[in-house]
Amino acid sequence: MIKVGVVGGTGYTGVELLRLLAGHSQVELRVITSRSEAGLPVATMFPNLRGHVDLAFSMPDLPALKECDLVFFATPNGTAMTMVPELLAADVRVVDLAADFRIRDVDVWQHWYGMKHACPDLINKAVYGLPEVNREEIKEASLIANPGCYPTATQLGFLPLVEQGLVDCSSLIADVKSGVSGAGRGASVAGLLCETSESMKAYAIAGHRHQPEIVQGLSLATDQSVSLTFVPHLTPMLRGIQTTLYGTLNDTSVDLQTLFENRYAGEPFVDVMPAGSLPETRSVKGANTCRIAVHRPLDGSRVVILAVIDNLVKGAAGQAVQNMNIMFDLDERAGLNGIALLP
Amino acid sequence: MIKVGVVGGTGYTGVELLRLLAGHSQVELRVITSRSEAGLPVATMFPNLRGHVDLAFSMPDLPALKECDLVFFATPNGTAMTMVPELLAADVRVVDLAADFRIRDVDVWQHWYGMKHACPDLINKAVYGLPEVNREEIKEASLIANPGCYPTATQLGFLPLVEQGLVDCSSLIADVKSGVSGAGRGASVAGLLCETSESMKAYAIAGHRHQPEIVQGLSLATDQSVSLTFVPHLTPMLRGIQTTLYGTLNDTSVDLQTLFENRYAGEPFVDVMPAGSLPETRSVKGANTCRIAVHRPLDGSRVVILAVIDNLVKGAAGQAVQNMNIMFDLDERAGLNGIALLP
Amino acid sequence: MIKVGVVGGTGYTGVELLRLLAGHSQVELRVITSRSEAGLPVATMFPNLRGHVDLAFSMPDLPALKECDLVFFATPNGTAMTMVPELLAADVRVVDLAADFRIRDVDVWQHWYGMKHACPDLINKAVYGLPEVNREEIKEASLIANPGCYPTATQLGFLPLVEQGLVDCSSLIADVKSGVSGAGRGASVAGLLCETSESMKAYAIAGHRHQPEIVQGLSLATDQSVSLTFVPHLTPMLRGIQTTLYGTLNDTSVDLQTLFENRYAGEPFVDVMPAGSLPETRSVKGANTCRIAVHRPLDGSRVVILAVIDNLVKGAAGQAVQNMNIMFDLDERAGLNGIALLP
Amino acid sequence: MIKVGVVGGTGYTGVELLRLLAGHSQVELRVITSRSEAGLPVATMFPNLRGHVDLAFSMPDLPALKECDLVFFATPNGTAMTMVPELLAADVRVVDLAADFRIRDVDVWQHWYGMKHACPDLINKAVYGLPEVNREEIKEASLIANPGCYPTATQLGFLPLVEQGLVDCSSLIADVKSGVSGAGRGASVAGLLCETSESMKAYAIAGHRHQPEIVQGLSLATDQSVSLTFVPHLTPMLRGIQTTLYGTLNDTSVDLQTLFENRYAGEPFVDVMPAGSLPETRSVKGANTCRIAVHRPLDGSRVVILAVIDNLVKGAAGQAVQNMNIMFDLDERAGLNGIALLP
Repeated sequence: MIKVGVVGGTGYTGVELLRLLAGHSQVELRVITSRSEAGLPVATMFPNLRGHVDLAFSMPDLPALKECDLVFFATPNGTAMTMVPELLAADVRVVDLAADFRIRDVDVWQHWYGMKHACPDLINKAVYGLPEVNREEIKEASLIANPGCYPTATQLGFLPLVEQGLVDCSSLIADVKSGVSGAGRGASVAGLLCETSESMKAYAIAGHRHQPEIVQGLSLATDQSVSLTFVPHLTPMLRGIQTTLYGTLNDTSVDLQTLFENRYAGEPFVDVMPAGSLPETRSVKGANTCRIAVHRPLDGSRVVILAVIDNLVKGAAGQAVQNMNIMFDLDERAGLNGIALLP
Repeated sequence: MIKVGVVGGTGYTGVELLRLLAGHSQVELRVITSRSEAGLPVATMFPNLRGHVDLAFSMPDLPALKECDLVFFATPNGTAMTMVPELLAADVRVVDLAADFRIRDVDVWQHWYGMKHACPDLINKAVYGLPEVNREEIKEASLIANPGCYPTATQLGFLPLVEQGLVDCSSLIADVKSGVSGAGRGASVAGLLCETSESMKAYAIAGHRHQPEIVQGLSLATDQSVSLTFVPHLTPMLRGIQTTLYGTLNDTSVDLQTLFENRYAGEPFVDVMPAGSLPETRSVKGANTCRIAVHRPLDGSRVVILAVIDNLVKGAAGQAVQNMNIMFDLDERAGLNGIALLP
Repeated sequence: MIKVGVVGGTGYTGVELLRLLAGHSQVELRVITSRSEAGLPVATMFPNLRGHVDLAFSMPDLPALKECDLVFFATPNGTAMTMVPELLAADVRVVDLAADFRIRDVDVWQHWYGMKHACPDLINKAVYGLPEVNREEIKEASLIANPGCYPTATQLGFLPLVEQGLVDCSSLIADVKSGVSGAGRGASVAGLLCETSESMKAYAIAGHRHQPEIVQGLSLATDQSVSLTFVPHLTPMLRGIQTTLYGTLNDTSVDLQTLFENRYAGEPFVDVMPAGSLPETRSVKGANTCRIAVHRPLDGSRVVILAVIDNLVKGAAGQAVQNMNIMFDLDERAGLNGIALLP
Repeated sequence: MIKVGVVGGTGYTGVELLRLLAGHSQVELRVITSRSEAGLPVATMFPNLRGHVDLAFSMPDLPALKECDLVFFATPNGTAMTMVPELLAADVRVVDLAADFRIRDVDVWQHWYGMKHACPDLINKAVYGLPEVNREEIKEASLIANPGCYPTATQLGFLPLVEQGLVDCSSLIADVKSGVSGAGRGASVAGLLCETSESMKAYAIAGHRHQPEIVQGLSLATDQSVSLTFVPHLTPMLRGIQTTLYGTLNDTSVDLQTLFENRYAGEPFVDVMPAGSLPETRSVKGANTCRIAVHRPLDGSRVVILAVIDNLVKGAAGQAVQNMNIMFDLDERAGLNGIALLP
């Protein structure tokens, strides 16, 4: 049994992580911290966990966390970096679901996240936890930077083309749509049902923190310079990310369907759908799957890739568990066999 | 032109009131106050009003308000009572959309609203603004207590039976369901889309402030003692109240359909639907209408009344405008001819 | 491994049953029939099942079904009764998720379902599959009438009081609210998003088929005559039933909380929540749990019971699997450990 | 008073048209036809119209229609073309909300709509009813081809750039998202709430009928050859179209904000929002407005235009009424002053 701690379990990423960990047969959940809710039984805040999680939230407490084999951070950006050094020093492995270790260039990170990094020396020690790219490094990693939700879907969609140099990397477009849970569980006007339901809008068009993360990931896969127009949209639903990716092919003779199928052959959580498919976010609701379809409208030079994930699962908590499974040499699917809920 | 001021225009009741007033040909909107948003153009906060409302929010300012013929309070409970005495003294008439003047017994009010009333002597001066009951008093009123949303639908549903002594008033039940806009526009976790969408629940079963308001209204219509079990539910939609009212008939020989049709004959905003109808909240979305249907399942002694309103219109801002029309001797329908949006 | 067949797998009950069976370690799914979709891979219709269910729909075919240990009928009412006799004769056990065997009085059944029963002699052989009432009979049953969704929640809510004679059975009220998936997956105008979203309404107030089913179940638990006013409502959400049950107590001295906790002690899928709780349907989304809270508003003689289930799980497919587990002497929780998805 | 007939009033475009016409002070609604619902009072089907529309549906009947000044067709594609010739011959003017006269090249039309055109000679007589482009021709027109919903928003968004040659017309992209009402009111599985709610997907990526309509409209505004990648998405909401348009600027020195403001100065129903705005579909719910914002992310050569409309209003029925107002020399805003419902 892996002894697991969770720092910050009161958000939507947190409750989803608890749902997955509670159903994982090789995990012993030892401690769940929340500064604001210390003392409250977790299942009182999240009644879906009644009968499945008996712990109460506790104060963030390094001695208790140091007794774990692995600690997940499901905290706001900027929290993990203050605690990770001491945990690593105690030989505790860490998966950070926030952004503290996602960007390798500390200046870029500090620009986008608007704070000083507390342990810049650890950034290079962190492995970017996208298993479809970095599975071998993840196995040995002590510190995982779990990817963002948009970056997961966008990179998985573009990578087969970018890696093979088949697309003009200077004119990529990602038009991405997310359910409201991506905005988190903090009290706000902007997240009210009455502000978000029955409406659609673009946001953060002037700059979104996931843009440099995606550019970094794609750049590592190509010699070309990568330029990406990234437009996120807020969609009136709970969960799900739908990405529509546009690129210009350098070579229209390639069999795109085969390319994608080969790239992800054997991947347990990437489903390249049959040619002509139109993936729906509901087909992955609650599941750790990314479904992808590749299209070439009117057989032109424009390629359109559609990719869907559940932002809270493959885009956050599920991918974190997948990384844990790899790190601890478990079946990569352990605890992640849940089938999407439809309808 | 009636010179109108609005105190507190940043909530959902406020924006709906502004929508109705902006489309009212006999209203000159003079001032809209908001302590927190002073200086901000109203249409920046509520872009649906772009091109229709040119005012900016201003600080609550008695001199400016005193130049109005009528001031609406779309404020939290407890605000109007601090300003109303001075406005009335200046011969400004007032419609309070909050609860400060709804309950005649000041002790009951103070118990349910948890604060001391600032001007208890004015409570009896206030007219309860349910036009279907108090139209004549409203004409002459200087201070209107605009009814709550649940009380509007529940009283309109029960009144024909209660007034005629046809129902056992000691065992009334109101099972009521409201859209989320009833919870207001304040930043909160409880109102997030991710907390309210795709879910249904009862709330406030131990006691809701609208219960004594309904009991008061029904008691005025009967010599019987009124006892009401009142269970509100939070429904995953923006707008709308659906009430299902249960009573036991004293007399099963009465023609309920005719009773209801006669009671509301000539009422511009109460629609008694044909026998057997099942009113939908969407049929009144954005409209000042209450649609009612009366049923006697299996021809027994149980009567079931269904009533639907838009909580923000007939349950708040629309009824406030209706009261204004009556007070100023306008066509009662003025500014309230909008047809419900379907779908 | 239990060899399982499913007749009629194209509706929402069907896909939910397939989701649960695909995740059940002791089930071998042998055949899924659909007259209209024969030949189509199941996962083409329901992409959430890609990678989990490899079967294609086949024509309903008795020889293939006879090779199963158990056949589930997820068909419209009136289908199972035409095939069940032959299956039973071949020693195949049956769980009918439709209504063919739910009502013991064949005349009552024929009245409500508007057709002639094809095998009235089998009705008494069928066991009503509510494990919390009939667990012992279910163990030995060859034919299970899986309860309706509303009847499951309503009976579980009322039973502790009815069994003990603590409530006046002549004046029960069930105000019940269901998500739209309860209306099925047939092409219709009434079920369109544009007809059901952002609206709330009562329906079938003149008579709903689940009313006699509930009355039958409660009558078996008491000597009193049972009279129930039953008002279902269509709620703008995918899944979930919320029931608000009203009764008049014969005895207000009883400790209702303890009564309910004792009644369901040890039940794996009934969760009596702490006193004062307000169960939300989302707390059981995708899970086989019924959560119940019991209230006595203002400490009066009125009791209000709140019960929530997922209509497709504890209200249909999950309860069917629970019955299967009991019939085949498996752990009653096998394949039903999924935690509700929140949000 | 303009005598108006409506052919086909049972869809969502139809009921929205009736809502607008019922509130238009210069319209006398004479006849509403529906082959399938003849005899049924319109307000029985659409209870929001109770008290506003007293007509019943009648059989499509040319003599009655010929007594009108104007006939709207809110019918499926292919119906108007069978009746229009006779109406025009009788000096009745026509606005077709369907697609029969939108495409000037009859071969292209026949290819995309899969039927033979019944009166190809009338296509050139028809005026494409986008007032922001063709206002003068609309005044004199006897036959208006009312634009499609996506084409309205997409053309209004691209036109300022295309007309001035500021964008590379060979690489335009329109990523468009529509509420479900765009799919119509026909009985279908695909439109069920349980198929469309809580999910997002692209559709018709291989070819959508609105693509050639947009290309035609943009081509008329430029000498360049126009190539457009058009990807529509189904969004879980009732109403609204959000378009995100991508282009590559030929000239990055131009002041885009001023360009757009000047282009639409004086237009009553196009709102160019302040620089940096992020238009929401809810800001136009029920209103005849197109709100536009223009962005140049990171000050690069990529331009991103955001445009929102209500697909049933500016995208269909509202634009049809706007066209009527122009044709009959009324105030262009008559009957179209309704403010969007928010929330």
